[in-house]
Amino acid sequence: MHRFYKLISNSFEGLWGSRRSGELDWLTFVPVSALASIIFAGYLYHYVNRQDSGSDRMREIADAIRIGANAYLRRQNSALAVFAGVMAVILGLAFSNLHLSLAYLLGALCTAAASYFGMNAAVRANVRTANGAVKGLSRALPVAYFGGAVMGLSIVGIAVLGMSILFYIYSLLYGDMETALDTILGFSFGASSLALFAKAGGGIYTKTADIGADLVGKVELGIPEDDPRNPAVIADNVGDNVGDVAGMGADLTDSYIAGTIAAMLLGARIYHSPIYIVLPLMVKAIGVVSSMLGTLFVRFGIRGSPGSALNRGTYAACIIFSILLYVVISLLNLGGLGLGIFSAIIAGLVAGIIMGLTTDFFTSIDRGPVKRTAESSKTGAAINILSGFSYGLLSIIPPMIGIVVAILAAWNISDIFGLNHYYGISMAAVGMLAVLGSVIAADAYGPIADNAKGIAEQSGLGEEVIEVIDRLDAAGNTTKAISKGFAIGAAALQVLALFFAYSEEVKIPRVINLMDPNVLGGILIGAMMPPVLSALLILAVGKNAFRMVEEVRRQFREIPGLMEGRSKPDYARCVDIATAGALKELILPGILSISVPILVGFTLGKQALAGFLGGCIITGIIFALMMANSGGMWDNAKKYIEEGHFGGKGSEAHKAAVVGDTVGDPFKDTAGPSLNTMITVMALSATVFAPFFL
Amino acid sequence: MHRFYKLISNSFEGLWGSRRSGELDWLTFVPVSALASIIFAGYLYHYVNRQDSGSDRMREIADAIRIGANAYLRRQNSALAVFAGVMAVILGLAFSNLHLSLAYLLGALCTAAASYFGMNAAVRANVRTANGAVKGLSRALPVAYFGGAVMGLSIVGIAVLGMSILFYIYSLLYGDMETALDTILGFSFGASSLALFAKAGGGIYTKTADIGADLVGKVELGIPEDDPRNPAVIADNVGDNVGDVAGMGADLTDSYIAGTIAAMLLGARIYHSPIYIVLPLMVKAIGVVSSMLGTLFVRFGIRGSPGSALNRGTYAACIIFSILLYVVISLLNLGGLGLGIFSAIIAGLVAGIIMGLTTDFFTSIDRGPVKRTAESSKTGAAINILSGFSYGLLSIIPPMIGIVVAILAAWNISDIFGLNHYYGISMAAVGMLAVLGSVIAADAYGPIADNAKGIAEQSGLGEEVIEVIDRLDAAGNTTKAISKGFAIGAAALQVLALFFAYSEEVKIPRVINLMDPNVLGGILIGAMMPPVLSALLILAVGKNAFRMVEEVRRQFREIPGLMEGRSKPDYARCVDIATAGALKELILPGILSISVPILVGFTLGKQALAGFLGGCIITGIIFALMMANSGGMWDNAKKYIEEGHFGGKGSEAHKAAVVGDTVGDPFKDTAGPSLNTMITVMALSATVFAPFFL
Repeated sequence: MHRFYKLISNSFEGLWGSRRSGELDWLTFVPVSALASIIFAGYLYHYVNRQDSGSDRMREIADAIRIGANAYLRRQNSALAVFAGVMAVILGLAFSNLHLSLAYLLGALCTAAASYFGMNAAVRANVRTANGAVKGLSRALPVAYFGGAVMGLSIVGIAVLGMSILFYIYSLLYGDMETALDTILGFSFGASSLALFAKAGGGIYTKTADIGADLVGKVELGIPEDDPRNPAVIADNVGDNVGDVAGMGADLTDSYIAGTIAAMLLGARIYHSPIYIVLPLMVKAIGVVSSMLGTLFVRFGIRGSPGSALNRGTYAACIIFSILLYVVISLLNLGGLGLGIFSAIIAGLVAGIIMGLTTDFFTSIDRGPVKRTAESSKTGAAINILSGFSYGLLSIIPPMIGIVVAILAAWNISDIFGLNHYYGISMAAVGMLAVLGSVIAADAYGPIADNAKGIAEQSGLGEEVIEVIDRLDAAGNTTKAISKGFAIGAAALQVLALFFAYSEEVKIPRVINLMDPNVLGGILIGAMMPPVLSALLILAVGKNAFRMVEEVRRQFREIPGLMEGRSKPDYARCVDIATAGALKELILPGILSISVPILVGFTLGKQALAGFLGGCIITGIIFALMMANSGGMWDNAKKYIEEGHFGGKGSEAHKAAVVGDTVGDPFKDTAGPSLNTMITVMALSATVFAPFFL
Repeated sequence: MHRFYKLISNSFEGLWGSRRSGELDWLTFVPVSALASIIFAGYLYHYVNRQDSGSDRMREIADAIRIGANAYLRRQNSALAVFAGVMAVILGLAFSNLHLSLAYLLGALCTAAASYFGMNAAVRANVRTANGAVKGLSRALPVAYFGGAVMGLSIVGIAVLGMSILFYIYSLLYGDMETALDTILGFSFGASSLALFAKAGGGIYTKTADIGADLVGKVELGIPEDDPRNPAVIADNVGDNVGDVAGMGADLTDSYIAGTIAAMLLGARIYHSPIYIVLPLMVKAIGVVSSMLGTLFVRFGIRGSPGSALNRGTYAACIIFSILLYVVISLLNLGGLGLGIFSAIIAGLVAGIIMGLTTDFFTSIDRGPVKRTAESSKTGAAINILSGFSYGLLSIIPPMIGIVVAILAAWNISDIFGLNHYYGISMAAVGMLAVLGSVIAADAYGPIADNAKGIAEQSGLGEEVIEVIDRLDAAGNTTKAISKGFAIGAAALQVLALFFAYSEEVKIPRVINLMDPNVLGGILIGAMMPPVLSALLILAVGKNAFRMVEEVRRQFREIPGLMEGRSKPDYARCVDIATAGALKELILPGILSISVPILVGFTLGKQALAGFLGGCIITGIIFALMMANSGGMWDNAKKYIEEGHFGGKGSEAHKAAVVGDTVGDPFKDTAGPSLNTMITVMALSATVFAPFFL
C-alpha cells in the first residue's frame, strides 16, 4: 500500500514539478480519509447488526421488508445496468474515448454500491431500533442514528474515493490533469444517471405503494395503517427505504460529486494550477473526516431530546470542519487567495445551515404555517389544499434569498481577496455540501425510525414502546425537513457551479446575454422543463398507484380469509407491481432530461444552451422547494390534527387534512426531490456534450 | 372639430418637418377610429338596453346585481382615487414633473371609465339575455354578445383615444415627441394601477363571494346554487361581473397600453423618427376598426352553433385587420422595413391565435386532459387535484413554445428586412393584441351568459329556457379559455417589449449578462415574485371567504324564516364584506409590486433590475398559465361529471371534483390572471423610475 502511494506521489511530483511538493502529502490524505470513512461505516454496520433483532414476528416482518427492498434494488440496478451500458457505448463512440465510458460506468457503480450498502444498513437498523425501544429511548436512538450514519459515511467515502482514485489514474495516464478532468466529468454523469433512477424511480415506487396501501386499506376497508392484512403494507415499508434512504442518498451524492467536479474544472480552466484543481477534493476529504467525528457527538449526548442530539452531530461536524479547514488552508500557504477560499467555503456552509433552519419554520409542526393549514382543514379539503400550496410558495423566500446572499457573498469575498469570482462561488458550493456525511446520517435516520414504528405496530409491541418510537419519529421529521431545505438549496448552488463550468467549457466569454433571442428562447424552454418533469412524475405516481389499487382489491377479493387474518396476502406481487411500474414510468422523463439539453444545443447553439440551464435552475429551485415544503406542511398539518386539535382523528377536519397529505405525498417524495437530480443530469448532459457545440 | 385637427396637423407638420406630410392624414385617423369605436359601443349599449328585461322578479334580481356591482366599483374607485392621488403626488415630486402626474391620473381614469361603462352594459345584458332565451337561442345570443362587445369596443376605443390625444398634446407642448413619450409612460402606469385594483381586487372579491356562497349554501345547508335564500348569492353574481368582466377587461387593456407604449418608446430610442413612434398607435387603430367590423360578422351568422358564431367574430376581425394593415403599410411607403414590420405584426397575431387554440386543448370539456381529470375523481379528491395540477403544468408547453417561436420569428424577420430586432419583437407584441376588442367581446360574453343562467334559475324560468342558456354558457366557456390563453401569452410578450424598452431607457448596451452576480441575484429575486404574489392572493381569498362564511352563517342563524323563504336575506351586507375585505387584502401584494423593483434597482443596480424583470416574466408566465389552465380543467372536469359521467351529480366522484373546482377557483380567477397585471406594474415601475438608476 505504501509503495503504491509512493508511486502515485512520485508520478504527481513529476506532473506538477517540485514547486509545491508539500501539498502532495495533503493530496494523499484524500483517499486515505475516504477509506477511513468507509471503514468506520463498516464498523457502524457491524455495531447495528450486532444488536438483537427481537421476536420471531419482528424478524419475519423485517425480513419481508429487507427482501422487498433488495428485490427493488436488484431490479432497478439491472435496468440501470442496461441503460448505463447503452449510455457508456454512446459516450465512447461519440467521443471516441473509452476512458470516458469507463469513468461513466464507475460513477454509476460507485453510487449504486453506496446506496446498496446504506440501504442494507437501514433495513437492519429498523427492526433493531424497534427492539431497542423496548428497553428505552437511549438504547433505540443510537441504533437508528448509526444505521443512518452507515449510509452517510459510506456514500461520501465512496464518492470521494472514486473521484480521487480516478483522477489519480487518469492524470497519470494522460500526464495532464486538465484532460483527466474531462474524463472525470463522465464519473459525475454516471453518478447522476444512477441518482435519476434511484431518486425518481424510488420516488415513484414509494408513493405508489403508500397511496395504494392507504386508498384500499385505510379508506375503503377501514383497516389501520401498517396492518399486516394489507397486501401493500410491505411494499409501503420497502418504499420508505428505497425512496427516502437509497434515493435521497443517491440524490445528494450526485449533487456532491457534481459540485466538486465543477469546482475542479473551474480551477483547471481558470488557474491552470494543480493545487486549485485538487483543492475541492481536499475540502471534501476534510468534510468527510469532520462528519465521521461529528457522528461521535451524537453518541456522547443522548440524555436530552432526540432532536437536539441529532442536530448536535451536524453542528459538531460543521465546527470541526471549519477548524480543520483553516489549519489545512494555512498550511498550504496560499496567502490572500487561501483566506479568500476559506471565507467563500464558510460562507457557503453558513448559508446552507441558515437555509435549512428557515425552511424548518414552514414545515415544523410547532409553527404558524402548519397550524394555520391544519386550522383551514375545518372548512374542508379545498381550503386545506389552497393554504398548504400558498405557504409552500411563500416558503421559497428564505432559501431563494439564501442562495442570492451566498452568491453575492462569495463574489464579494473573491473581489476582496483577488480570487476568481466563479471559482469563489464554486468553492462556496463545495463548502455548502462539505459535511454531507452528517446531513445524510440525520436524514436517513428518519425513515429508519418510521420503519421501526411500522414493525412495532405490526408485531404488536404495545403502546409504551410505540410512544418511545413516536418520539424518535418526531425528531426524524425535523431533521428530515432541515436536510431537505439544505439539500435543495445546495443542489441549486452546485448546478450553478456546473453552469459556470459549462460556460468555461464552451468558452463563452463570460457573457450570456439575456437580450439575445436564442438565449431568451433557451431560458424559456429551460424554465419549462422542471414544471413539465414534475407533472410527468406526478402523473406517473397516479397511474402506478391505480395499478396497485387494482391489485390490492384483487387480493382481498380472491384470497379467501384475508380480511379475517386467516391467510396471508401476496406481499411480493405488490412489491413487484410498484417496481415494474416505477421503472416504466421513468423512461419518458429520463429521456427528456438527457436529450432536451442536447437538442437545444444543436438547434439554438451553445449560448442558448447556457440560457436553458439558467432557466432550469430558476424554476427548478422554485418548484423543488415549493413541492417539498408544501408536502411537508400537509403531512404535519394532518399530524397536528391527529394530536387532538380541531376535532382530532376521524373528524371532518382530519378527513380534509388526509386529502392534503395525499396530494403532498408525490409532491414531497417524488417530484420535488427528483428535480434536483434531473437538473443535475441536464447540466451534466450539456457539459459533457459541450465539445459538440463549440 | 375640423379646426382642431387642422391645428394639430399643422403643429405636427412643424414637429417633424414636411418630409413625410402624407402620413399625417393617417395619424389623424387614430383618434377618429377610436372615437368611432366608442360611438359604436354606445350604439350597442343602446341596443342592449332597448331589449325587454322580462318579469318583475327578473328585474328585481338584475337590479340587485347591478346595484351590488356598482357599489363594488364605487368603493374600488374611491380606494383607487386615494391610491392614485398619492402615487401621482409621489411621481410629480420625484420627477418634478406635473405632466407625468396628470398622465398617470388620466391613465387610471380612462381605464376606470372603460371598465365602468363595460360593466354597466354587462349587468344590463344579463337579464335581457335570460329574457331573450325565452324566445330562443337566436334572440338571446346577440344580446349577450353585444353586451360583451360594449366592453370590448369601449375599452380599446378609450385606450387608443387616451394615448393618442395625450401624445398629441404633450408632443405639441414639448415640441418633441421623445420627451412626450416619457410622460406618456405615466399614462400606462396609471392604467396598470387601475388594472391591479380591478383585476386582483375583483379577483379576490369574486372568489370570496363564490366560495362563501357555496360552502354554506351548497355544502352545509344543501340548498341549490343561485338559490335566492342564500345571502351571498347576489354577491356571487356581482362577482362574475366585477371579476370576469371589469377585471379581465382592465387587465387586458393594461397589457394593450403597455405594449403599445413600449413599441413607441423603442421606435423613438432606436429610430428617432416620428413615423416609427406613431406606427404602433396606428396599428392599434386599424385593430380597433377591424374589431368593430368583426362584431358584425357574429350578427350575420347566428344559425350555426353559438360557439362558432362567436369565434367567427374574432377570425373575421383578424382577416380584416391583416388586409387593412397591408394596405396602410403599403401606402406609408416604408419599403423593405414596411414589409418587415407587416410580417412581424402578423407573426405576433398568428402566434397569439395558435396559443389560444392549443390552450383550449387542455381546458376543453371534450378533450383528454379534462376527461382524465374527471375520471381520476373516482379515486378521490387528492388524485383529482394531482391530475388537474399536473395537466395544468403540461399545458404551459404550447404557449411557452408559442412565445419562443414568436420571438425567434420576429427576430429573424427583422434580420431579413433590416429592421431593428427589438422594434420587430415589440411590433409582434403589438400585433398579438391588435384585435383585442374582439377578444374582450367574446370573453365578456361568458360571464353575461353565466349571470343570465343565475337570473333564470332564481326567477324560475323553467327547464327549457335554462337549457337554451346552458348552450350559451357552454360556448362561453370555450371562448373564455381561448381568450385566457391568448391573454396570458400576449401579456408575456408585451412585458418582454417593456423589458426591451426598459433596457433602452437605462441605456444598457443591449447586454444583460446572466453571469453577472447582480443580474443573477436579480433574476432569482424576480423569479420569486410571481409565486409569492400568487400565494398572497390565494391566502387573501381564503381569509376573506372565511369572513363571508361567518356572515352567511350569522344571517341564517339570526334572520327568522330565512331558510323557509319567508324573509329576505341582507344581500348588501355580503356584498359589502366581500368588497371591504378584497381591497384590504390587496394592500400587501400591491405595495410589493410597486416597491420591490424600485428596491432592487436602488440596491443591486439597473442591470440587476433588468434581471429582476426577466425573472418575473419567466415564472410569471408559467404560474399564470398553470393556474389559469388547471383551474379551467377542474371546473370542466366537474361539469363533465355533472353531465352524467362516472356516477354524475351527487356521486363520490362528483364530491371529489367539487374539491378540485374549489381549489381551482382562486387559481383561475384570482391569482392566475392577476399575475399579468402585477408583472406589468413591476415592469412599468422599473421603467418609470429608470432615470434614478442611471
